[in-house]
Amino acid sequence: MFRYDLALIGFGGVNRALAELIAERGDALRAELGFGLRVVAITDLRAGSLVRTEGDGIDLTPLLAVAPGELDFSQLEGGSPEPRNEWVIKEVPADIVAEATFTNPTDGEPALSHLRWAIEAGKHVCTTNKGPIALHGPALRELARRHGVRVESEGTVMSGTPVLRTARRMFGGLTVTGFEGVMNGTSNYVLGRLEAGLSFADAVAEAQALGYAEADPTADVEGYDVQLKVMILAGEVLGADLKRTDVPCTGISSLTAEDVRLAAAEGLRWRLVGSAVRRADGTVEARVAPVALPAEHPLAGVSGPTNAVAFHTDLLGTVTIGGPGAGRTETAYALLSDVIGIHEHTGGAASGFGVKSLQEARRG
Amino acid sequence: MFRYDLALIGFGGVNRALAELIAERGDALRAELGFGLRVVAITDLRAGSLVRTEGDGIDLTPLLAVAPGELDFSQLEGGSPEPRNEWVIKEVPADIVAEATFTNPTDGEPALSHLRWAIEAGKHVCTTNKGPIALHGPALRELARRHGVRVESEGTVMSGTPVLRTARRMFGGLTVTGFEGVMNGTSNYVLGRLEAGLSFADAVAEAQALGYAEADPTADVEGYDVQLKVMILAGEVLGADLKRTDVPCTGISSLTAEDVRLAAAEGLRWRLVGSAVRRADGTVEARVAPVALPAEHPLAGVSGPTNAVAFHTDLLGTVTIGGPGAGRTETAYALLSDVIGIHEHTGGAASGFGVKSLQEARRG
Repeated sequence: MFRYDLALIGFGGVNRALAELIAERGDALRAELGFGLRVVAITDLRAGSLVRTEGDGIDLTPLLAVAPGELDFSQLEGGSPEPRNEWVIKEVPADIVAEATFTNPTDGEPALSHLRWAIEAGKHVCTTNKGPIALHGPALRELARRHGVRVESEGTVMSGTPVLRTARRMFGGLTVTGFEGVMNGTSNYVLGRLEAGLSFADAVAEAQALGYAEADPTADVEGYDVQLKVMILAGEVLGADLKRTDVPCTGISSLTAEDVRLAAAEGLRWRLVGSAVRRADGTVEARVAPVALPAEHPLAGVSGPTNAVAFHTDLLGTVTIGGPGAGRTETAYALLSDVIGIHEHTGGAASGFGVKSLQEARRG
Repeated sequence: MFRYDLALIGFGGVNRALAELIAERGDALRAELGFGLRVVAITDLRAGSLVRTEGDGIDLTPLLAVAPGELDFSQLEGGSPEPRNEWVIKEVPADIVAEATFTNPTDGEPALSHLRWAIEAGKHVCTTNKGPIALHGPALRELARRHGVRVESEGTVMSGTPVLRTARRMFGGLTVTGFEGVMNGTSNYVLGRLEAGLSFADAVAEAQALGYAEADPTADVEGYDVQLKVMILAGEVLGADLKRTDVPCTGISSLTAEDVRLAAAEGLRWRLVGSAVRRADGTVEARVAPVALPAEHPLAGVSGPTNAVAFHTDLLGTVTIGGPGAGRTETAYALLSDVIGIHEHTGGAASGFGVKSLQEARRG
């Protein structure tokens, strides 16, 4: 039976949920997918690092029994109080590095370095981290190509909803001319409350009280979160390499309850839309802005935690994919789907390795 | 360069549109997809049959210049006034048989025989024909497995919108517990006109006048078309092998304009929904019926020529795929996507064959 050894970088909600999936469903997944998953390293800013490459790797069940804030890897065999990200990524034998640290929209660090170290060490990468993929996706994919590994990043757009992979693999033979997406659940929630008559400030305060919006809601309501997703999608489906300055960004804070009420009276619904289209000269025009959509628009009904992207194509017209925009388990599933994607690209050739991992096989 | 030889069975709108795609885009497709397409046989109830296996195969451009009703293959070299389906499918060397004759919802014939002959002759099959796939899909796939070929049928549900292939290939590692679909454009149109205040009879008459409904609208408005699609989807995503009697079917003819108006006043929208769900005992419960959907339901906004299927899953909740439900080019694209699917399953192993087709390679 084929097996992948994983190093989890960042042990917050997403990688912890991935560990839960592996602990709870590992046997079922092995039976279905034809490969096993073994976690050989975990690093976390607060908990430190933990490495175990013998036997079944790290025993996940006792770790998952400890509350997230109370994990201390230094107390465990193979543990250290330091995250030791660089050492773990470069030196611990793993087939796949699962990167799920915080998103930095300015320069993508430290996740960008995590991904580069992994690729240069000959390890595949899966990540839910928007920063490095939005800012440096094409360069990272080229680096991975040179090193013979994969960079997979389904979870950077709409958690585990298979948006990137569908666009990449289901549209062969046709041309995607552009896309429009409703890709921010917080903005959906706030717009829904504006439709119900609340002021913008009250709607944001309510979203914060309910945990839907962060203490600083800027990235969501000003559109910066969607801006990164537009850059990622434009790279995947239009081959564009956009900078943040290439994507003009207007958030929903420019809307008033009165705007929303007047639009609703005309059958229009305001949505925060991230979009890109290929111009006649081949370049790509992208933007993020609130748009008043007519009821028959495929994104008009997208609301609350559901997100959706409408792809415009030459042969099929518009194809829309909707699903969860966020969530711990939903995003952890994105990482699992990335591992499946890596397996489909590489596993066929490697599947004679028996119980050895890719890394062991590479070492001979 | 790898190449697939195609036999087109039925030369109505769909296979004719596929021939147009090949004639107009063959070179671009070859560059993108890594394989060429050559049509070596065409059969049609009215035009007869045409076979040319030498050189570039059948020259499609002059055929496409003739109006559909005026094609007469008997006037051409390699032509016959008879369709000769059985002989062409069994004897003409082709890699893939593209079946696009009329749908027979009772026993699937003659398409069912076309598919069986092709599979038993060692040929891959792609089809847009709902009859044989709905009624005998699991048996056909098993027959194909035994003969080492593929049966692909993306166009049987929502034309080229990648519903079946997404469900089969994008949901690895999670469990689909059921689905709901709005999969009939004629019903969508009629419901839209009922919402606008027309009577059912007037709405159907209008749809017929505009060419959206057939002279006998029974299959669309009584739900029988959706019933076949539910059987196909349930086979693909739930592993069910349903008979028509397993899928109770109520059409939209049971609705009045008053029903629709009253629902709209409560924020509900009637849609003809085909659905299936796995019961606790493992069996599958399926049905077709009009349902009054709340505005926030992912299918409530699906209208007109757009169709959509919402898949319910354990790890991702609901994932919805929307797109065109019909159309000549859209359905021809389904056949092209089937060929791509066949290539992805078999082409890797065969890609050392150079310019030889699979069939030539098989013959040595």
